Amino acid sequence: MAHTSVDAHAARVRSILARAMATGTERVTLGDALGRVTASAVLSPVDLPLFRNSQMDGFAVRAADLETGETTLPVVGEIPAQRGTPAMLAPHTTVRIMTGAVVPEGADAVVPVEDATVVDDVVTIHRPRSVGEYVRERGSDVTAGTELLPASLHLASRHLAVLAAAGISDVEVRSRVRVVIVTTGAELIEPGQTADAGQVYDANGVALDAAVRACGAEVVAAIRNDTDDADQLHDSLVAVAAGADIILTSGGISMGQHEVVRDLLTPLGGRIGHIAMQPGGPQATGSFEGVPVISFPGNPVSTQISFEIFVAPLLRRVAGLPAAIRTSRTLVADVASIPGKRQFLRGRTVEGGRVEVVAGPGSHLVAGLAASDVLIDIPESTTDLKAGDAVETLQL
Amino acid sequence: MAHTSVDAHAARVRSILARAMATGTERVTLGDALGRVTASAVLSPVDLPLFRNSQMDGFAVRAADLETGETTLPVVGEIPAQRGTPAMLAPHTTVRIMTGAVVPEGADAVVPVEDATVVDDVVTIHRPRSVGEYVRERGSDVTAGTELLPASLHLASRHLAVLAAAGISDVEVRSRVRVVIVTTGAELIEPGQTADAGQVYDANGVALDAAVRACGAEVVAAIRNDTDDADQLHDSLVAVAAGADIILTSGGISMGQHEVVRDLLTPLGGRIGHIAMQPGGPQATGSFEGVPVISFPGNPVSTQISFEIFVAPLLRRVAGLPAAIRTSRTLVADVASIPGKRQFLRGRTVEGGRVEVVAGPGSHLVAGLAASDVLIDIPESTTDLKAGDAVETLQL
Repeated sequence: MAHTSVDAHAARVRSILARAMATGTERVTLGDALGRVTASAVLSPVDLPLFRNSQMDGFAVRAADLETGETTLPVVGEIPAQRGTPAMLAPHTTVRIMTGAVVPEGADAVVPVEDATVVDDVVTIHRPRSVGEYVRERGSDVTAGTELLPASLHLASRHLAVLAAAGISDVEVRSRVRVVIVTTGAELIEPGQTADAGQVYDANGVALDAAVRACGAEVVAAIRNDTDDADQLHDSLVAVAAGADIILTSGGISMGQHEVVRDLLTPLGGRIGHIAMQPGGPQATGSFEGVPVISFPGNPVSTQISFEIFVAPLLRRVAGLPAAIRTSRTLVADVASIPGKRQFLRGRTVEGGRVEVVAGPGSHLVAGLAASDVLIDIPESTTDLKAGDAVETLQL
Repeated sequence: MAHTSVDAHAARVRSILARAMATGTERVTLGDALGRVTASAVLSPVDLPLFRNSQMDGFAVRAADLETGETTLPVVGEIPAQRGTPAMLAPHTTVRIMTGAVVPEGADAVVPVEDATVVDDVVTIHRPRSVGEYVRERGSDVTAGTELLPASLHLASRHLAVLAAAGISDVEVRSRVRVVIVTTGAELIEPGQTADAGQVYDANGVALDAAVRACGAEVVAAIRNDTDDADQLHDSLVAVAAGADIILTSGGISMGQHEVVRDLLTPLGGRIGHIAMQPGGPQATGSFEGVPVISFPGNPVSTQISFEIFVAPLLRRVAGLPAAIRTSRTLVADVASIPGKRQFLRGRTVEGGRVEVVAGPGSHLVAGLAASDVLIDIPESTTDLKAGDAVETLQL
């Protein structure tokens, strides 16, 4: 796949991951369901409201008793909102009733407390009332058996609320995609340690971990290989592959002498090649014990942009998250681009929705990427853009 | 505050919560920092790149050696990307160098492997090279002491990456706002149990828990009071108030006989009143052992919309999350609204960006809210809207 196009490699990654993405489902409690995606439609086991109840604090009445105009009724009881079935309302009487309380048999309307005059245990109601007024009928929101929530819904608080209201305490959701992250390089050390000459802090482990989780997937293992030894990497992966849907790697796939991911994947039939893109030229795909491997180059900007272009869209879709926003914007200044490479320049939106390039194209410029809010997507064939030209941007 | 406007109550809640929102900061590891908000600007302790290194796999050279055109140089060694300081490059020699490896003293350019011809240990380079070509200078991304990240930044993966690259393993972030959730009502039972006559599943506990977390705050305690006993509620709150920044309650503040939150807050100087809104008329504010209390009515739709209107904007701002999107849309059909009340109707956006009303205005219609994607915000003075009229909507 020498100098494959970005779109062709993206299609390849998509097809490789399609199988991994067809993951299972699991049941989670409502407290764990925020942001998860329904595996199937959820039907209501009950009517909602569960029973006929009062919309107001007031008096339960029989509308027919009030037909003559101003009416005086004895208050013969009180129905709080609580467990229990109230007694039937006798004709020409009323009971106090609280919001949400069961409307008794015999009553067919509620008169709000602010519309009634009470003296001792007698209430005066000043005008007739319609049948059903301030009464919430059983099933008027939902009837048992109808759909509460559709399949593939990204669960927000209001969705969990209706499940709870229907008495449902857990929900079947799509399992999270389980990702193993591998960072490679004999130069890598953990942030927080002291770097000796030649050593570099591993930014890719942190970046991929956060990016995977931001896409609604789960990081089940993170491996840092600083040995350049493919056998050792193989052994590390054996220990975790069974629990993974995808393996993502960074580094070790370019043209140097010590390319640990290349050495791992080549005998397994992996495809290591070059994509017509900058940053992120070297890319590879493979399979490890049946788990798809998607491999990015090791420069931190290359890794992060490769993930965003090739893997993030799929993870977001499985997790029910919206796709990254693509917008056409105008350039603040002229931009030159390399012929034959699709460039993803780091950009920052400025006043008027225009976009300026942040830092250079170098794939080591991690601060430049951090200062960006968009990637500016420049086609392979474009080499010169002028201030005011329209460019497509991808929101970070 | 009888029939206060929505805006006036919102301003009151804002001012009450302002103090609670001025919370502290905490240090978290990069693995826990995704989505948190920087408490202050982060300066780089180091130059990035940490050292002068090669941008390519190739040959480290002295540009002056190549000035005459095609040049042949002996390959006297190899510099992998790993710990260590390479020997100085002698004039008229070259060393193999890997991407990211230290460029040796004496060298000032790198020739990519694909631009060189190697036979045994002799490399032929076909044309002159410029000083600095394919060399990443120390500090060319960031110099020590300059700002890596600003204060009040919502941390995404690319921000964590630059911290890691600079060797930083933890970061000072704003503490999450700590929220206690109280749901009240003698009729409430836990979802998953069997409801007897008169009993209702507590949807507000689940809804507020998820909504608070979706706003980047933390739920430190959830209390369900089904006793209508203010003393018991008082005791429950004493146990948790010290660890809370805000207490949110639902139910128990209207005009009934058994109003547990009203009974709790009244002797503490709380303000219980009526807001000119639907749903959500009854609202209250108070203070419990110095912790602000914001109280919503108990109908699940009222609780959820009250939270969204009065509390969510503040929590989102503190958590560095974007505000809910307000958009003007056109109505699919005529809508009538109650004079003197600001209505928040549940709406669903349909083709062409128009909006239709979902279900009725009743505050018990939890399924209607779940099926909505916007609230349609109708001013107090508006009573009749026609199909095609513009309305303001608030994205859920």
